[in-house]
Amino acid sequence: MGCLRRDAMDIVLKSIQEVLPENSVRRALEGRAFPGRVFLVAIGKAAWRMASAAGECLGERLDKGVVITKYGHSLGDIGRMRIFEAGHPLPDHNTILATSKALEMVKDLSSSDTVLFLVSGGGSALFEKPLDGVTLEDLVNITDQLLTCGADIVEINMIRKRLSSVKGGRFAELIYPARVLSIVLSDVLGDRLDSIASGPAYPDSSRTEDALAVVDRYGLKLKPALLELLKDETPKVLDNVTTTITGSVMVLCKKAREAAEERGYRTMVLTTTLDCEAREAGSLVAAMAREEVANNRPLVKPCAIILGGETVVHLKGKGMGGRNQELALSAAAGIAGLEGVVVISAGSDGTDGPNDAAGGLVDGQTFNRLRERGINIYSSLDDNDSYNALSASGDLVKTGPTGTNVNDLTILLCK
Amino acid sequence: MGCLRRDAMDIVLKSIQEVLPENSVRRALEGRAFPGRVFLVAIGKAAWRMASAAGECLGERLDKGVVITKYGHSLGDIGRMRIFEAGHPLPDHNTILATSKALEMVKDLSSSDTVLFLVSGGGSALFEKPLDGVTLEDLVNITDQLLTCGADIVEINMIRKRLSSVKGGRFAELIYPARVLSIVLSDVLGDRLDSIASGPAYPDSSRTEDALAVVDRYGLKLKPALLELLKDETPKVLDNVTTTITGSVMVLCKKAREAAEERGYRTMVLTTTLDCEAREAGSLVAAMAREEVANNRPLVKPCAIILGGETVVHLKGKGMGGRNQELALSAAAGIAGLEGVVVISAGSDGTDGPNDAAGGLVDGQTFNRLRERGINIYSSLDDNDSYNALSASGDLVKTGPTGTNVNDLTILLCK
Repeated sequence: MGCLRRDAMDIVLKSIQEVLPENSVRRALEGRAFPGRVFLVAIGKAAWRMASAAGECLGERLDKGVVITKYGHSLGDIGRMRIFEAGHPLPDHNTILATSKALEMVKDLSSSDTVLFLVSGGGSALFEKPLDGVTLEDLVNITDQLLTCGADIVEINMIRKRLSSVKGGRFAELIYPARVLSIVLSDVLGDRLDSIASGPAYPDSSRTEDALAVVDRYGLKLKPALLELLKDETPKVLDNVTTTITGSVMVLCKKAREAAEERGYRTMVLTTTLDCEAREAGSLVAAMAREEVANNRPLVKPCAIILGGETVVHLKGKGMGGRNQELALSAAAGIAGLEGVVVISAGSDGTDGPNDAAGGLVDGQTFNRLRERGINIYSSLDDNDSYNALSASGDLVKTGPTGTNVNDLTILLCK
Repeated sequence: MGCLRRDAMDIVLKSIQEVLPENSVRRALEGRAFPGRVFLVAIGKAAWRMASAAGECLGERLDKGVVITKYGHSLGDIGRMRIFEAGHPLPDHNTILATSKALEMVKDLSSSDTVLFLVSGGGSALFEKPLDGVTLEDLVNITDQLLTCGADIVEINMIRKRLSSVKGGRFAELIYPARVLSIVLSDVLGDRLDSIASGPAYPDSSRTEDALAVVDRYGLKLKPALLELLKDETPKVLDNVTTTITGSVMVLCKKAREAAEERGYRTMVLTTTLDCEAREAGSLVAAMAREEVANNRPLVKPCAIILGGETVVHLKGKGMGGRNQELALSAAAGIAGLEGVVVISAGSDGTDGPNDAAGGLVDGQTFNRLRERGINIYSSLDDNDSYNALSASGDLVKTGPTGTNVNDLTILLCK
């Protein structure tokens, strides 16, 4: 065991390393053999990096591929693949063009062929071809209505899947009888496979009557032709699909656990679906830190308590920061003066709000370091100014963009 | 192991039973012998019940006693004791009268005598005698200034202790050379003994210069005579005092643990100083529940994850509720649809805001029960209307006032 701050930082870096697109894809392809031809479709913000790693693994085995990523996210040519960039978070005409090319490539395959389907966050906008009779404008209009009427994400997806030729399992259905090996880098808490990228290769759990109830509930205005399309049921069984979640917050936490154990810490993963307000999560992590210092529990020290997920920040102030920095700063208030505890929180994508930090790493002296610089920690929190506070106390975590996104990692380390 | 809801309720009731004033005092006095005369001073909202139990334990051994409790909290005469009722949360003339009577009783004792000092929440207002030259009006005026200038509780106590003849260890100092056995029912998170009832029998950790810095920092206006009094140092060593915290959130959690283990659950106390926003605490408890259901961790099921403390609610709506009910309702949103988990949260005093409930007990079907009754759980939370929601779903916990107050207990029970 080294210095707590050093260990915390090392554990986070090791964990992020494990969920980089390249490493995730290599792990998922290791030892796999394919009977017939292999095609590749990669979608999402990490599509280029996933496709590039898959290309290396497959070499000559790969027939050809289509890669669809966000503008600016392609890093150049990859052998045997066509690379497209398109709109995100809203789909655009390039989305539809690129998706059509992918569909063309995978039509008329035989049952011995395999489509390697690489999915990452952002795939919902980047992989879309509306059903015949539905325009891109229709989609944008309905999405607008859904967002303003207060529908939740499940309800939004219910409608969108039914107007799409690829979402809600329909992509895999089109590929049948060829096999689909879906390799997923998940940015959805709880890894709900029908939600990640709107589940192009996963059975849809919603029913027609659910979708129609949403239209009723929120008084959505749809053209009669679209209303008819909502009545076509989505696939409920897809027996040509195998799905592997290769990178996710679960993997991030698993690696954090291993890395902490290697360094001599007892470990516990408290949750992988942390989704509360960042400041309050920090407060609760601090409450556990106090329990460790006072009563050597919930885990006997030295220990690492690990939380994965994605907190939220309801902005009240005008400061600069991010959810991980705010969590860390709030924890710093709650562990002020304590020895032998640090709290680190960082985004696996290496970013945390509109600034150059990935998160924060605080200890029992952070509070005092801030006070010495004339900064009141509570005022900083009220102003959502965690970036400037942690910058002043020397407690920012900076990794630069990592190219992956599997949510955030928070660790309480005690010795 | 029985039904989860039944077990959760039983564990909470058993835990509260353990920290009732009577049981706490009996446990603390068990097996104790006193060399000389025994006097009793009981202060706080639970003073009458603590004194009554002590009277029963001591019988003839008790010389005499003074009991000072809040208006309406005396339940009648107790042999050998004088009972006073006084102002709370602000001290009044009866506070000073009663405190003077207590001081008269314990003056001129010998080193073989013992003063049994029974302390409970509210003691700070109920036990007070300003130093000579300080009037009750002075105290009220300074407290007002401190509360409006934004001073924190530690800073407020720093000033108040120095203007008092009993706070900040001075009561025990006056009793010297007689012994003080202080039996404390704590309502202060972390059991900081110099904070509970402003620590009449506990060394004060603040220094004169700290107190003067507070006056400077907030520009407090004090008469010159009072400013002089601030310079008199408070006791830093009190070797005639023995202190036992007999009832506290620590004991509450310990008993919860025992009761859960008796029923076959693995247990873990996550924290005894939970102090974040109620709704967010509920959200985080739900995140652990999801982890239990999905991944059988942090504890292998069947298990009980126990949190003690006192959350806060920042009111935004106009509904009816309390912090425990709000925590439970928020957890219900986060565990919607899950089988085999319940969350209970309750105030050990049997009250939770201005209503007749002590808290809430929710399960994976609470969400649906509410929906069937036309109640949107998120709207209820936004309106701070947890009482009406949990009332509609049949998930209120009602115990009636219990006569004790050692903060709140929250338990996630999974099987």
